[in-house]
Amino acid sequence: MGGLWYTEKQTDSFGITLKINKTLHTEQTEFQKLEMAETEEFGNMLFLDGMVMTSQKDEFVYHEMVAHVPLFTHPNPENVLVVGGGDGGVIREVLKHPSVKKATLVEIDGKVIEYSKKYLPEIAGQLENSRVEVKVADGFLHIAESENVYDVIMVDSTEPVGPAVNLFTKGFYAGISKALKEDGIFVAQSDNPWFTPDLIRNVQRDVKEIFPITRLYIANIPTYPSGLWTFTIGSKKHDPLEVSEERFHDIDTKYYSKELHKAAFVLPKFVEDLTK
Amino acid sequence: MGGLWYTEKQTDSFGITLKINKTLHTEQTEFQKLEMAETEEFGNMLFLDGMVMTSQKDEFVYHEMVAHVPLFTHPNPENVLVVGGGDGGVIREVLKHPSVKKATLVEIDGKVIEYSKKYLPEIAGQLENSRVEVKVADGFLHIAESENVYDVIMVDSTEPVGPAVNLFTKGFYAGISKALKEDGIFVAQSDNPWFTPDLIRNVQRDVKEIFPITRLYIANIPTYPSGLWTFTIGSKKHDPLEVSEERFHDIDTKYYSKELHKAAFVLPKFVEDLTK
Repeated sequence: MGGLWYTEKQTDSFGITLKINKTLHTEQTEFQKLEMAETEEFGNMLFLDGMVMTSQKDEFVYHEMVAHVPLFTHPNPENVLVVGGGDGGVIREVLKHPSVKKATLVEIDGKVIEYSKKYLPEIAGQLENSRVEVKVADGFLHIAESENVYDVIMVDSTEPVGPAVNLFTKGFYAGISKALKEDGIFVAQSDNPWFTPDLIRNVQRDVKEIFPITRLYIANIPTYPSGLWTFTIGSKKHDPLEVSEERFHDIDTKYYSKELHKAAFVLPKFVEDLTK
Repeated sequence: MGGLWYTEKQTDSFGITLKINKTLHTEQTEFQKLEMAETEEFGNMLFLDGMVMTSQKDEFVYHEMVAHVPLFTHPNPENVLVVGGGDGGVIREVLKHPSVKKATLVEIDGKVIEYSKKYLPEIAGQLENSRVEVKVADGFLHIAESENVYDVIMVDSTEPVGPAVNLFTKGFYAGISKALKEDGIFVAQSDNPWFTPDLIRNVQRDVKEIFPITRLYIANIPTYPSGLWTFTIGSKKHDPLEVSEERFHDIDTKYYSKELHKAAFVLPKFVEDLTK
């Protein structure tokens, strides 16, 4: 096909392949292999341990859908924590909510922040915002040390390999519950139903044991395995399916809308079955 | 990565790659290059001119969503035409509606039917059903010769290259309108919003000129470009957004549900913009 191509094996027998205009940076950090490249189709892209993290062309889907669904579900989110998400995209979306007084980012790998600022400035630009505190630290430990602090916690992790293994455990969800206020909400990316149905089933089972309201919602992300991505919500009090019309306000988005907020919870039958 | 892999270039700079257990058939037919292969991840798959047509693992999404959305929108579909769709998957779904007395398949390439029956029997098996008539003929001409005949017409074509070029023209949509009864409905696959937004815009524009009710809906198909597929509906009278609850009846599906019927029309903002 000519030239340099980056192939991500999304399963042992399926992958995507991307034409590379140039490689921008490659480094084995303390935690993972970090690669940044300029692709022809999706613009600059960040890969960790060979997995697509984000791209300039489709990043808005993931970042909008992680942030706005829980933030519009909570009636007045003021104090928000993002675990992982060193590219800064979720933080950028969080700041679109005027109620948010403070957004804390806890990213384990400072190199992700450094190279996102350099090569993904539209995504990482808001990390310097005065409402944002950036901590380079272990999110699992940060959660363990926090109690009754946050209105919303967002877990923007890689797949459960490498540094993210701890973030897919019942102990972590219990810690999140403790770190949240009495009406807090948490959301985590929970992979895709085509190749990792058992992961979704396990996350649902574990979160249900800890949160009275557990929901699954979906979005289309072309650079992620299968194109169909899921997010799991655990909530102590507020149901994302019962947000009043007045709660929504206009924000600048390319994917999320108040209508899509509701539709995202209507799952294809085989996905719905994973939540039972 | 080892062994034999099939790579589909979905754009000039993006593709998917599939591990092949064995190739089953390769042939240059009168109309196109036909390839059938057993893949590790998606089971047996049919490729035409190098593009994925269907796979055993994910075929249910496309076939259910093409068929059931218009068939539940029409109050009493009796006479149904499928243009293309030689693999038989849409016909299989159409036959799940007891109101349907006759389903006609007009496929231009008899080899698609022949090798689907051989290697995709769960998909093509209903082509022998007594309610089905199979014609190996040009769908464009069949439409041109039909008047006031069909309740529902489904266009299950390839992309607008090769034999399908004529199926993405205003003249074809006008012919479909003529071939439909006075309250008829048609649906066509209309590609994806990430790589071919202009195609969606053009189809919307053209169909709107001919049908009073024009709608776009979506489904996730992991083996199709971007994973997000669109379908365009043109309807003379019945609105797919206003189907009464009583119209729905239980059918055996893995993707479609009456709730998803409605949610599929709630589009991400950037997709909604293509319909304006």
